[in-house]
Parts: sequence; structure tokens; C-alpha cells
Amino acid sequence: MQNAIAALDLCELSDAIAHGEISSVKATAVALERLDLIGRKLNAVVRLDGPRALRAAEAADKLRASGALLPPLHGVPLAHKDLFYRAGDLSSGGSKIRADFRPDVTATVINRLDAAGALDLGRLQLAEFALSPTGYNEHYGHALNPWNPAYVPGGSSSGSGVAVAARLVTGSLGTDTGGSLRHPGAMCGLVGLKPTWGLVPTDGVMPLSASLDCAGPLTRTARDAARLLSVIADRDYEAAIGASIGGMTIAVPGGYYRDLLHPIIVVRLEQAVAELRGLGASIIETAPPDMAVVNALMLLVMTVEAATIHRRWLIERPQDYAGQIRARIEPGLFFPATRYVEALALRTQITQQWIACCMGAADLALLPAIAVPVPTIEATTEGGPEAVARIIGQLAHCSRGINYLGLPGASVPCGFDNAGLPVAFQLVGRPYAEADILRAAHAYQGVTDWHHRVPDAAELN
Amino acid sequence: MQNAIAALDLCELSDAIAHGEISSVKATAVALERLDLIGRKLNAVVRLDGPRALRAAEAADKLRASGALLPPLHGVPLAHKDLFYRAGDLSSGGSKIRADFRPDVTATVINRLDAAGALDLGRLQLAEFALSPTGYNEHYGHALNPWNPAYVPGGSSSGSGVAVAARLVTGSLGTDTGGSLRHPGAMCGLVGLKPTWGLVPTDGVMPLSASLDCAGPLTRTARDAARLLSVIADRDYEAAIGASIGGMTIAVPGGYYRDLLHPIIVVRLEQAVAELRGLGASIIETAPPDMAVVNALMLLVMTVEAATIHRRWLIERPQDYAGQIRARIEPGLFFPATRYVEALALRTQITQQWIACCMGAADLALLPAIAVPVPTIEATTEGGPEAVARIIGQLAHCSRGINYLGLPGASVPCGFDNAGLPVAFQLVGRPYAEADILRAAHAYQGVTDWHHRVPDAAELN
Repeated sequence: MQNAIAALDLCELSDAIAHGEISSVKATAVALERLDLIGRKLNAVVRLDGPRALRAAEAADKLRASGALLPPLHGVPLAHKDLFYRAGDLSSGGSKIRADFRPDVTATVINRLDAAGALDLGRLQLAEFALSPTGYNEHYGHALNPWNPAYVPGGSSSGSGVAVAARLVTGSLGTDTGGSLRHPGAMCGLVGLKPTWGLVPTDGVMPLSASLDCAGPLTRTARDAARLLSVIADRDYEAAIGASIGGMTIAVPGGYYRDLLHPIIVVRLEQAVAELRGLGASIIETAPPDMAVVNALMLLVMTVEAATIHRRWLIERPQDYAGQIRARIEPGLFFPATRYVEALALRTQITQQWIACCMGAADLALLPAIAVPVPTIEATTEGGPEAVARIIGQLAHCSRGINYLGLPGASVPCGFDNAGLPVAFQLVGRPYAEADILRAAHAYQGVTDWHHRVPDAAELN
Repeated sequence: MQNAIAALDLCELSDAIAHGEISSVKATAVALERLDLIGRKLNAVVRLDGPRALRAAEAADKLRASGALLPPLHGVPLAHKDLFYRAGDLSSGGSKIRADFRPDVTATVINRLDAAGALDLGRLQLAEFALSPTGYNEHYGHALNPWNPAYVPGGSSSGSGVAVAARLVTGSLGTDTGGSLRHPGAMCGLVGLKPTWGLVPTDGVMPLSASLDCAGPLTRTARDAARLLSVIADRDYEAAIGASIGGMTIAVPGGYYRDLLHPIIVVRLEQAVAELRGLGASIIETAPPDMAVVNALMLLVMTVEAATIHRRWLIERPQDYAGQIRARIEPGLFFPATRYVEALALRTQITQQWIACCMGAADLALLPAIAVPVPTIEATTEGGPEAVARIIGQLAHCSRGINYLGLPGASVPCGFDNAGLPVAFQLVGRPYAEADILRAAHAYQGVTDWHHRVPDAAELN
């Protein structure tokens, strides 16, 4: 019974609770137990509030019994990246500096989940201050990839990726400033959806870089992502998700988006493209513009905005940052303001150019999520600063530009690499085209079963 | 007949043309002749396109004769600050550097005026790159205040103020980054309305500082301002303008807004407050927060954004700027980006604080438009850099903070100083409270006749 509940995805669990087939108390108890055992083993958990969650679950079950109309996530246990504030609760942001920080506001997205009936079990591990594509956290240790604990889970929303992949919770909110939802999505075998910049409110979420930060869901299926996004964006993304993608055009950009590509990634992407073509999508090849410019502007905006937030701490408490993290923020102190204004001013024009080049008349672009196979923890921590910078650059190669452009993008699992770690493609759309991305991903998941594969660490076999 | 037409305000002329009492051709011919004679004498005109305007006026008269439904500014001749682009036409921005610049886009507000039937007679004088509260322009000379040509007309929308006050046109678009609509409004005896930041599109308007720039109207009456604003903001501000202000509360902040205040300004403001009280408004006294912070942040944002636009020219063509103008832009090259990000990040909170302190529960705040009497041209050009900076600081004392706050504000003429130059108060509202400002200004103009006084330079007596 426990394992049967843990095996359900978010929509299945949500529907089962709504129909009274599983009580919220039962689902919550299972999730708490798994988070406490498996979650802590994988270092995915920061803190849980079991008693509060169980009380809320009891109330949810009573409400259902009363025959009341139920909200869309009624009684569904969730847990989120430790970057989402709830007034009065601790919120460390994965840092030593904010280890004792208790915000006095609650994130709008957390309020929206509350209003939708979701239960909030606690907070999950992340990279220090949300700043690492591997999930690196010197203070609290690495979260471990459930497919193989020697490998990184991807970051910065590492605990969210681990918890959903290991079937501890069915969905989790994370944030994405340069790939922080799509990296754990790709590396843990999940749909990590970074919405269009500005679609989902980020107030009450510890900022890294306000012009780039996006909050979004990590889930096993596109349908689950649609259900969560509908709540946090306050629009319906689920109604049209089942429509055919026959007639849809998907662009596959070459050039920059083929650079660095590992042969096994090439194979998996080709297989994914073949499946999408089989579903009726037209595939066209396109050529990206100069991505060096896009990446340079993205880094400038991110480091400047991060340095603005961290300036005082960088001066007063430099020793409380991991060297790898501080080295990525500090350069932001030294840019002239005119360069920053220019970087923001160029954004619209460069986004239009990227869409024209990479997408043309297509509905979506299909990119690699990550150009290289999932690296081991050792490979991403043992080298010197240059080696680490090189790996970060590789991992973020296909993701961080999308944040500067402000476009929506999602990782979609499409198989495994030679070491048995997940591989994913990335679907990118025009501004506010989340529904198209979810529709294509859902259609693809309808003819593939990568999202049904269960890692050993989930202990369901 | 000519003088009778020139004496009409914008609504009167617009209605007369709509009713066929005056032809658009006649109104346009009068305006062109007056711009050419009086406008050039007062150095308010940059360039006119008479033949094009007359052709458009003929077409307007034909359309009226056909019985077609007429748009709100049908056949009304206007002319604007030389900062508003029309594709293919010269647009100098008052500068030597852009003397030959022909943009390939048309400002959205110009398109909206075209669509509303207004005729575009040409472009009017301004301070170099819109950067002076006096209207100072070393390259093309000062525009002259129609009330006394020895005095500055206010800037940067100097030509717009002069042309409307001297009855050359009934209305003119200008821009306001630190007071550039309210200064010529106050110094020429007009309503200069700076809308809420973001309300009126500024694309196709030469930018000075995108986070502060606002486009708005200069007119003789609040009702005229409402009619023009309705067109450029694409909302109706005229319908409710006649409502009573009985029950309205107007706050009069002390402290900072009493500093520097010349005795004659004190007298005129007290008279204005008495009139408003007589109209049924409740007057409350309030105390502003620390305005040194607001002003410092405003200057930081303005100089950084201006320096971003001007960087290349500052390096390649420094000699083509007036020293006074270059000195105000150059410091923007040297701010760190983190300070700029911080200045923008603080904006919401400081605005809420200003509103809480200065307005409290009131509907509007009444401030001085300018703390001191209108200065002479000599007083603002003969001194050294420190003297000029001091005068700029005095003139912008009550206006520039409002741009950082993003609030709507309007100058409303309320009499004359000892030298016979206009004095004005400033009404400031909450975001998007333009309708309240216009209603209060209209009520005030209903019981005063300052807006009917005609300067000798208008040659109507």
C-alpha cells in the first residue's frame, strides 16, 4: 500500500485523494516517512514539519467528508526548495549566512498552493544561494542523485529533483535563474519547467537575480507540471494539454546547440526527434545567433544583481561563503552601471533575434537540456577553480541563455546515458507559450515511458 | 478673426472645428503664421512643415464636409518638443550631435495623435538632450519667456511652454524626466502634466533616462490636458473632469517642501490653498520623509541611464556637448552597477513611504511647482559651474523627486511674482490618479482666471 501510494504521480494522487480512494492523512504519512528515511539518506531534506502537515491533512480529510467543493490540489503533500518563504518559518537559501533567517512574508506562490489545498511538508536541499548547476553545497553537503549517488542531482533545485525522482513527493517548486529547474529535471529524469520570466510571481522567494529568476514546478509528468503551473500562475494549463501535436512545427537549432554535445546525447535527442515526428510534428533545422553575446549579457545581469543583494555579506562575512559560490558573485561588484543598463536594454532585440533565428516560423525549439552526461560529484568538486568553471559552463551551455531571453523552457526526460543516468531534451517556446511546451511534452510522454522508470534509491522494487 | 482664433484654448478650438465654425485650414494657417513670426522671435521653433500641415488641414475639412464621424482632435493644429520622432523627419533632440538624425520610427504618441485627427505642424525648441530645468541650449540659443524675454521659459520642454503660452498652438507634447513639463508649465503659466511613469508610451521618443522619462501635455487648461492625455494614454480623462472636489482631501507637506521657498511663492500657494478649501476640499498638513535620499537616488538613476545612451558620444564627441550638459551626464559613467540596481530596487518601498508621509489618507498632495521665482537668463548662464548647479538644484527641488517616485504631477498656474512672471502650485497624486489631479486643477481654474491672462508677446492685445 505504501509503495503503491508512492508510485502515483501528482495528478493520480490528487485525483485519488479527491475521490476518497486515498486519505490525505495516509498520503501525507507516506510522504513524511519517505522524506525522513530516503530523503535524508539522499540529503534532499532541509526541514520537515510533520505534525503541522498531518494536522492539515486531517482537516483536508474532514473537509472532503463534509462534501464541500474541493480545490485542485486538495490534500496533496508537497515540499519545496528552501528558497520559498513562509512567514515565521526558517528559510536558509542553502546558506550558512541565512541559517537563522525567518522571513516575515509568505511567497505568493506558497499562498496560491495553500489556497489550492496543497499541504506543505517542509523545505528541500539546494545549492548555496541557488547558485550551482550541480547542486553543490559546501555547508550542508551534496544531495545525491537517486539514479546513482556518486553523481550530482543537478542544481540549484537539487533536493526538489531528488525528492520527486525518488518518489518522496509528487511535485516540488524550485527556481531557475540559469537552469536551476531544468538541470535537476534533466539529471534526475523529470519535467523541470522554467516559465516565461514574469509569469509566476517571485515575491517571497529569496532572489538571486530579479531579472532572470523564475519559479516553477519539478514533476514526473508534463500533466503534473500543468496542474502545478495552473495553480502558481493562476491560469489553466491542463485543459488543452491532451490536444494532438499533429501540425505543430518544432525547430532543432544546430551550431552552438550542437557544440560540446556528447555522442550519447546526440543519439537520445535524435530518438526524441523521431518520436515527435511520429506524433505528427514537422521538424525543421535552424541556426542560432551569436550565443557568446547572449551568455555574456546573462552573466553580467546575474552577477550584478546577485552582487547587489550580497554586497554587504561579501564585505562582512566573506568566509561564510563557499569559495566556488563567492567567486561567481564577486565580479558583479565591479561592473559599471552603464554596462548593466545596456545589457537590459538589449534584451528585447536579442530575444527577437534569437526567436527569429532559432525558431523561425516554428511553434517550439528543441534543444539539449544539458550537452554532456551527468557528471559525478567527484568530477565537479575535485578540480581547481578553472576546472569547476569549465564544468559549470558545460552544464549551463544550453540553459542559461534562455533566462536572459526570458523564454519558457522545460526539460523532458528521453532515456539514459551509458552510465544509466537520465538524459533530457529541452523544449523552448515564445513568451507565454507554456501551453505549447506542455502539450508537446505530454504527447511525447504518451508514447514513451522514461517517466515511469523508477530509480533504485526510491526503494519501490 | 486671427486673434480670436489664437485666443481659443484647445477644447474651444477643437469644438469649433468639429462644429464647422472654424475650418482646420484657417486654424492651421493662423498657427503657422504665428509660429513663424512670434515663435521664431521667441526662439521656440525648431522646424515647421507648413505645406504638409495645410494639405492635412484641407483633407480634414473635406472629411468634415462629408459628414463622417470625427475623431476627438479632428483638424486641430499642434506642434511638439523636438524629441518626438516621426519616421523620416529630422529629430535633433536640441543637440548638435543629432543635428542630422532622421529616425525610422514614429513615436506611438504621435501615431495616436494622428489617429485622433490632430495635425502636426512641426517641432519646438528644447534644452540640449532634454537636460535643463531652465531650457538652456548653447547650440540653438535660449527660448524666451513670453511674459518677459529676459527670463527663462523653463525646460527642458521650453519651446512647448513658450508656444502654448504665446497662443501659437493650443497644446504641445513634451517630456518630463526631472520636471521638464512642470518647469515650463510653471514658468510660462500653463498646466504641464507629467503622467504616472509607464502610463504614456515613450517608444519613439528620444530617451534621457528610461526609468524616469514621461511624455505628457502642456496646455493652458486642465480640461485641455485631459483631452490630450485621453488621446496619448488611450483612456478617457475628460468625462469626469467636471465633478466637484467637495469631499476631496488635499495634503500640504511641510518640511523639505517649505525649504528655499521665496516669500512670494508662499503667498501664492496660500491663496491657492484657500481657493481649494473654498471649493470644498479638506486641507491637511503632512511631513515628507528624507528627500535627500530620494534626490540622490533620482540623480543616480538619471545620470547612469543618460550615460549609457551617451557613452559613445561622450568619448568620441565631447566637444559637441555644452559643458553644462556634459557635466551632468558624465558622472553616470562611474557608478558601480550594484548601486544602480539598488536604486531601482528601493523605488517601490520609498514611493510607499513618500505617499504615506506626504499624503497619508489624502487624495492629492499640493507642493510648490518651483520654490523660487522664475530666474533671468543671465542669472542661469553667467555664473560658474557651482552657481549653475545651485540654481538647477533650486529649480528642480520640488519636481525631480516625483520622477523617481513615478507619481503623476501637474503644474497649475496660481498668479504672478513681483516681476510679473507666473507662479504655480504642483498637484501630485497616487499612481494613475491623473483624473483626480485634473479634476482638482479644473475646479481651481473654474474659480480663478490666471489661465486667461495673455502675455504681451502673444500680440493679442
